[in-house]
This record gives sequence, C-alpha cells and structure tokens, in this order.
Amino acid sequence: MNHNLRSDADAIIKASLQAVLPDEAVQRALKDYQPVGGRTILIAAGKAAWQMANAAVRTLGHVDAGVVVTKYDHVMGEIPGVTCYEAGHPVPDENSFAATQAALAAVSDLTPQDTVLFLLSGGGSALFESPKIPGGELQDITSQMLASGADIVEMNTIRKRLSNVKGGRFALTCAPAKVLSIVLSDILGDPLDMIASGPAYPDASTCAEAVSIAKKYDLKLSDAAWKLLEEETPKELTNVTTQITGSVRELCAAAAAKCRELGYEPVLLTDMLSCEAREAGSFLASILKTHAGEGKKLAFLAGGETVVHLTGKGKGGRNQELALAAAPGIAGLRGAAVFSFGSDGTDGPTDAAGGYADCTSMKAFAEKGIDVFAVLKENDAYHALKEVDGLIMTGPTGTNVNDIAVAMLNPA
Amino acid sequence: MNHNLRSDADAIIKASLQAVLPDEAVQRALKDYQPVGGRTILIAAGKAAWQMANAAVRTLGHVDAGVVVTKYDHVMGEIPGVTCYEAGHPVPDENSFAATQAALAAVSDLTPQDTVLFLLSGGGSALFESPKIPGGELQDITSQMLASGADIVEMNTIRKRLSNVKGGRFALTCAPAKVLSIVLSDILGDPLDMIASGPAYPDASTCAEAVSIAKKYDLKLSDAAWKLLEEETPKELTNVTTQITGSVRELCAAAAAKCRELGYEPVLLTDMLSCEAREAGSFLASILKTHAGEGKKLAFLAGGETVVHLTGKGKGGRNQELALAAAPGIAGLRGAAVFSFGSDGTDGPTDAAGGYADCTSMKAFAEKGIDVFAVLKENDAYHALKEVDGLIMTGPTGTNVNDIAVAMLNPA
Repeated sequence: MNHNLRSDADAIIKASLQAVLPDEAVQRALKDYQPVGGRTILIAAGKAAWQMANAAVRTLGHVDAGVVVTKYDHVMGEIPGVTCYEAGHPVPDENSFAATQAALAAVSDLTPQDTVLFLLSGGGSALFESPKIPGGELQDITSQMLASGADIVEMNTIRKRLSNVKGGRFALTCAPAKVLSIVLSDILGDPLDMIASGPAYPDASTCAEAVSIAKKYDLKLSDAAWKLLEEETPKELTNVTTQITGSVRELCAAAAAKCRELGYEPVLLTDMLSCEAREAGSFLASILKTHAGEGKKLAFLAGGETVVHLTGKGKGGRNQELALAAAPGIAGLRGAAVFSFGSDGTDGPTDAAGGYADCTSMKAFAEKGIDVFAVLKENDAYHALKEVDGLIMTGPTGTNVNDIAVAMLNPA
Repeated sequence: MNHNLRSDADAIIKASLQAVLPDEAVQRALKDYQPVGGRTILIAAGKAAWQMANAAVRTLGHVDAGVVVTKYDHVMGEIPGVTCYEAGHPVPDENSFAATQAALAAVSDLTPQDTVLFLLSGGGSALFESPKIPGGELQDITSQMLASGADIVEMNTIRKRLSNVKGGRFALTCAPAKVLSIVLSDILGDPLDMIASGPAYPDASTCAEAVSIAKKYDLKLSDAAWKLLEEETPKELTNVTTQITGSVRELCAAAAAKCRELGYEPVLLTDMLSCEAREAGSFLASILKTHAGEGKKLAFLAGGETVVHLTGKGKGGRNQELALAAAPGIAGLRGAAVFSFGSDGTDGPTDAAGGYADCTSMKAFAEKGIDVFAVLKENDAYHALKEVDGLIMTGPTGTNVNDIAVAMLNPA
C-alpha cells in the first residue's frame, strides 16, 4: 500500500463524514422551532434515527412521547421520554413492524394543537414499515428487488403501495396534528416523496409506474400485492412542513474542502452518480490514467449511489466493488488511488464502510494469489480487499447521505 | 430534438474528424523519408489503408510495388503501382487471407537496400491476417471473443499467436529489408505491439497471458490452437523503425478546440475510457445533472473505446448504446446532450458512426412507443435512435483513432 495516499484518503474520509453527522444538522433545523401549545411527539426512523432523536431532545429539553426505530446496534443509549427500537435492514423484519405500530399508536388521536416531530433518515424504507401484506411476503419482494439491481427509487415506488405508512400515509394518520418533518437525504437530488418512501410527503409516483417496475424486474407477486399496486397514494398533505438538513452535496463539498487543504485540486464530477459500481471504478481509473502525466495533485469526486448486479455469492458492497474494479486500471500508475465509501459506515452486508485501492494494489493481490477479475465475478470484494488492507472501516456513523468515490493523483 | 445542441454536436464531430484524417498525418511522417537506394514496397493494412497508401504514393511520387488491404467499400480508386484488396471486418474472411498472402509474397526475397513502407491503421487485426489454423476456426474464435466482451488488447494477444504475420512475424518476413512502419493508433495508450496486433513490432505479450485470457473467457479452441498459444513471438526486431501519426489524444484535442470555439468550456475527463458503454453513458448523464445548475456552457470529453456485453440480438454499436443509455438521465435537463461516435465512421455492424441523445429524446421515444430500457436489453440502439433522428452518419472516414463521447450543457 502507498501509505501517504492511504493517509490522505483517511483524512478525507474523516473530514467529510464529520461534516454530515446528524447532530449539528438537527440542532440547526430546530433553532426556530416553537411548539404551538399542544403535545410534542417525536418519531424518528432510519439509520440516523437515534442520533437525530438524541440531538432533538437535547435541543428542545423534552418531548411528550417518542419512538425511535433504527438499525441493529445503532441505539447508543436511552433518550428521555422516547422508546428506542432496533430492526431489520435492508430487509424489514418483525421488529420493524412492531416499532412502526408503536409509532402509529403514538400519533393517533392527536389534536390540531399537537406536533409530530418526524425525523427521517436513510434506511427508513425498511425500518419504518407497517405492511398491508404478510411480513414474509414483503421481505421476499424486497429481497427480489435488491437482487435484481433495481435502484432505490424503483424499490420505493413499489414498497409505498404495500404499506400503511409510506407514500404520505403516515402523515394522514397524524392529522389533525401538525407534522414537522426533518430529513437527512439519502436519495440523489433529494426527492422528498422517495426518501424513506416519503411517509410524510405527498407521493409523486403513480400506480402505473409501480406496475411497470414490477414487470421490468419480473417480480413474483401475489394477487393481493398486484391489487395493492393499483391503490393510489395521497397527492396532497396540508398538515406537513419539511426541512432537508443533509445530503450528498454537503458530503462532496466537505470532501472537496479537505482535498484542497491537503493540496489536491478537487474536481467535482457529479453528486448524482447512479451507474454500475464496477464500471464507475473503471471510468475513474481511466480518468486518472489520462491525467497522471500532468504532475499535479488532483482529486476527482463522484458522489451518489452506484448499483451492483449480483453475479456471484461472495461478500461485498457497491463501494468495495468500485474500488476493487479501479485497481487494474491504476496498477503501477504512480501516485494514483481510488476509494469509495458509504456515509452510513456500512457498505452492503459487511462491517466495512467501503474500499480503497491504489497503484500498488494489483501487485499485492498477485502476491496473495488473488485474481481480481474472478473476485469481481463472485462479488467477493470484501475478502480480497481485506487481504491487502483495502477495507475502509469507520463503524456505523449514524448518518446516511449516500456514498462518495474519490480518485486521487499525488505524483510527488 | 434540440436543434441548437445537435448543430453544435455536428460541428464538433466534423472538426474533430477532420483533424485526424490520415492524409495529412502520412504526408507529415514521410516528409524526411529518403529511400536508401533499393526498391520501395508499400504494404498498407487497416480501415485507413487506402487513404494512407494514396497519400504516401502522392507524397513519394511512386512505389515499386504495393498491396492495400482494407474494409469492404473502403477502396476509393486506383493507386499507381499498388493492388488494392477489400476484406472482412471485424471477422476476417478469405479475402483477408488472400490479400495478406499477396503482401507476404511482395516482401519475400528483398535485399538490405530495399524498404518496406508499412502503413498500419485500426482494423488491421482482422484485415491483415494469414492464419496458422483453418480460416473458419479463426473466424469462430474471433466471433467468440467479440461476443464475450473481451477488449481489443485481449483479442490481439490471442490472435497474434494464431497468425503468420502478427506479433512481429511480418517484419521477420521482410528482413533483411528495412521496414518503415507508420501507424495510426487505434488502441488506448498506443501500445505498438497491440495495434493491428503488431505485425512489425516486437511482441510484449506472453504465451502465459494468452492462455489465461482463453481461460478467462472460456474460449472453445481446438488442440492445435491451444498448442499455438504456447509458441512465443519475436521479442526483438532490428530492421524496423516506427512512427505514430495519429491517436485518440489528437481526436480529443481537436474536439476540445472546437468546443471552445463554440463557447463551451471543455473538460477532458479521459482519453483512456474502456468501461461498459451504457454505464459510461449513465456516468456522463450524472455529470451533466450535477453541473446543469451552474449556468455555464460546458463540454465533458471522454475518448477511448468502451465495450458492450451482448444480452440481446438487436442492431447497434458501443457509441449508440452509450448515447441511448444517457438519455434517461438527461431527460428534461435543459440544454443537455450526450453524443458518442467512432472516428472510423462505423459503429458496430451498422452504417452509423454513433449516436446522439439530448434532453428531449426521452419524450420523443415515448411518443414513438419506444421503451429505452427494453431497447438496451436487446442491444437495439440503432433502430431506436433512428426513429428520433439520433444516429450520427458520417460514412466511412478513412481514419480510425478510437471513439469520443461528449456530454454538453448549453443552458442558454
């Protein structure tokens, strides 16, 4: 490994994560909050739910009742007045359903003077769920979509029609209470009806789109589920105010600022990346190959969320695949590195946040007898990167504003 | 279609092609050529062979004998002293073999005073071929590799071991005559042993690599072919001088210059692009989405040669797929267009040079009842683009220095 490059990479990772942690964002959003006189009920859902709820209660002093539902191992302690649940992600489980039922109970029978403080972050689609079909069937459909390579927008278009809370239906239950929705965005371009499948936002997606997506990926659905795809979601909600407090754009900006501080000229390619992970890695490698001769410290940034079409049964995630796929292209290319990580700290079903590869990685793989192309075919980036210290380990960060990939050149 | 964008695209296409036409390049390369007293034999192979040979004979006044072998419909007239052949591409056919035999005959029995003027351009791998295995078997292997998604470097590593001319073996036949090799480069990074499989250049690839590639793509080979993969190629050639006269780098530079002239700020991403065509299109679209808000005229350039892994039986080429795949991402994005074309003027087995899509294309597809995702699955970009005037038609250009993709923004 090139230790200078890796050390710069780690500094960029740390600084960019710091900038999108939920605490500060939530405090900022609540700065001017004035309860209208009734009760304040806090409902927080998503991978960052605990941090957001904790920051909110610290800022407000107290809430009258509350429910947090987040991923396993993401509850960091007790929050006064709030019940915390941990549940399944990316596939919802019985704990998701129980927690969501508790949230629905807490917001039923409210008055127009009451306020629901709804704190939403990535992962909410799986975690905040009360299905209209049996839980097992919903899990099966979610698994089918994850394996098919459907993007998150497509997955949510389906899921909100199978749910009692998604697609604006949660906000209907809160009425006549007001809903203040504070959102950490994990979907590119911040489409509010899509983030966590938009429990408190009018739904822009249509039944026709849902049916077409189900056909595109050849989903196996029961007759009951097909029927639900044709039940329309609310298109208007008068009791909701929404504030976005974080997004991949801020992640990219923070990474760029740190790059500049380290002497790299940052070039923001995109904050809307959505292509196949390994091809993005190859593209970034080809960018470095062209610019390697210029003798400049450069950092090309691509924020977003790539996809992986599974062909094997290995262990990995989209960020690890991206970095691994870049390795052949930058092999021996002096001062070149590509890394990619998820801001939530967990890439796919692994304990790594992402992957790192540099000009020395292919040599290191060869020495370990690892065939990168075979590894990619098997979607086994985790084990390969682990062998060469190419995993990025941050632990769960408590935030989730997509991923960022960085392709760096330090010819010195 | 956005006619302003299309008109800018056409101007960029025209100007960048003009800059890499073989005529000027060959004249420049021969400026200081002095025959050493013996005979001058001209051998030209590749898609640009006729233009290069024609320019060479015009520059030198005459040659003593010559053979041109190029693609069908690429011979534009007679050249004094030279016999012109047309043959199969990308799969070699009997005419390839006959023409190459004629070339081998013309360079046998030469003296140290004689010179072979060897003009090489893209497509030479298929066109300039004298196989050591039956022609049908060679065609089958080439077809297998094209369908598998093998890149051109990998294809050539295999083919040069099955050949009497590739991998430096042609130059051995010319000896003791001197060989002046003038090369229009169609492989990224200009690896001279790879261009047209390096008939007049020492071979850097090894038997071990050839065997590993054959296994990687699970090629079906006869025992005789497996055996040939293990016969090593010449690693040194003392009778050859080589000049590179064109490459994708010049294509990109010329496109950038035209962009600037039209008021676009050009950003060269890479001239080494080599990823999956449709994913490159998606990546370029995501770049435009991020920069659309800046209100600037921008043009992002990516030269290289993408690959297509066939999943369907439609008609298309890598440039057409790239442009079509960008269409969903830039739908409705004011002033955005993505186009891509091959500098040889023929993209895949079609009469188009490439494809063009802009912010209006998805609407146009919808009006024609065309489902872009289904078209991509079927690899049928040609017919879809044709319906919306999205094909780029240049006719055969007589040059071949890879492809270029341009992603433009003109918010005005």
